[in-house]
Amino acid sequence: MSEPKSKNIVWSESHVEAAQREEILGHKPATIWFTGLSGSGKSTIALATEFALIARGINAYILDGDNVRHGLNKNLGFSPEDRTENIRRIGEVCALFCDAGLLVFSAFISPYRADRDLVRSKHAQGQFIEVHVNAPLEVCESRDVKGLYQKARAGEIPEFTGISAPYDEPLSPEITLETGEYSIDECVQQVLAYLEAKGIISAA
Amino acid sequence: MSEPKSKNIVWSESHVEAAQREEILGHKPATIWFTGLSGSGKSTIALATEFALIARGINAYILDGDNVRHGLNKNLGFSPEDRTENIRRIGEVCALFCDAGLLVFSAFISPYRADRDLVRSKHAQGQFIEVHVNAPLEVCESRDVKGLYQKARAGEIPEFTGISAPYDEPLSPEITLETGEYSIDECVQQVLAYLEAKGIISAA
Repeated sequence: MSEPKSKNIVWSESHVEAAQREEILGHKPATIWFTGLSGSGKSTIALATEFALIARGINAYILDGDNVRHGLNKNLGFSPEDRTENIRRIGEVCALFCDAGLLVFSAFISPYRADRDLVRSKHAQGQFIEVHVNAPLEVCESRDVKGLYQKARAGEIPEFTGISAPYDEPLSPEITLETGEYSIDECVQQVLAYLEAKGIISAA
Repeated sequence: MSEPKSKNIVWSESHVEAAQREEILGHKPATIWFTGLSGSGKSTIALATEFALIARGINAYILDGDNVRHGLNKNLGFSPEDRTENIRRIGEVCALFCDAGLLVFSAFISPYRADRDLVRSKHAQGQFIEVHVNAPLEVCESRDVKGLYQKARAGEIPEFTGISAPYDEPLSPEITLETGEYSIDECVQQVLAYLEAKGIISAA
């Protein structure tokens, strides 16, 4: 827009490199995709890991029902098509966060393997970290923080994952967290150790 | 998940404060929403401003047709409803980026005032900065980098903003950039000066 009246304007197009973002932020980007039954501990471990990262001076962000279902995806319901579109959009947002250099957590049940694999395909190699937050159904049901299992058993919630709708277990997740056997802190340490081992964050 | 067999698990829910992200990142979050005709200079100025910020050690990210239309919004066309949904989703993603502490640029024509006002309403006070990238239609058309005006004039592109579809000028944008009168560098400085004046970034 120098010499704006000219038809021979040179449009400057500067592209920011991932390495520049990494240097500024002090870590590599990644999507840490938690998947598991309701009550398995996805949100709890995501929150605790985010907290641990922030304490180490690393910004991270969680996408969950609170900030996605009432905003970006508020025009989606719970039909199979809408569930798939829900995960598709979340996955695309995760990919944008990665492109921006960020560490982002997704904390949705995301029961369908095909949906998760589609999200993986939107990421660069090594930037999608699938974390199976695993606990036996009876443990998840005994937690029942929101009373959802009780409602599902009473037939008040149709197609509830684990009760009346399927959950496709990850076949080869990058991380499996056995939340029925280990403490929150131990699970957080397992995630952080993985990120360190892959050079996504520096050792503490 | 300490004592996982117990029904009296204390679920730790730690919430990260915006101030903690600001301390880590060294700036406040904001959405810098460029709006204007095709060829007005939205992408060019967004790229140049992003480059200037990165050079100052501030991470910023641009949402534009390249990374949104082929991903998150690839299931949307150009009907009025789809255009509105396109801007709605982009606005929600901007709000998520702000929530994550980031500086994010949007570089879409976004011709409808109602759509832009909806996006503004999704942001905290002061976090939505509407930038009218303004140049006379004849200047934009003379640039015609992608040959779109020529196609629109030939009737090959229906409902082309400024030619055969309306553009609602912003009524009270935070910033107006007269790209027909000022250079790219001058426009970038105008944006940076605004961000500094509002305390979103520190003075260079």
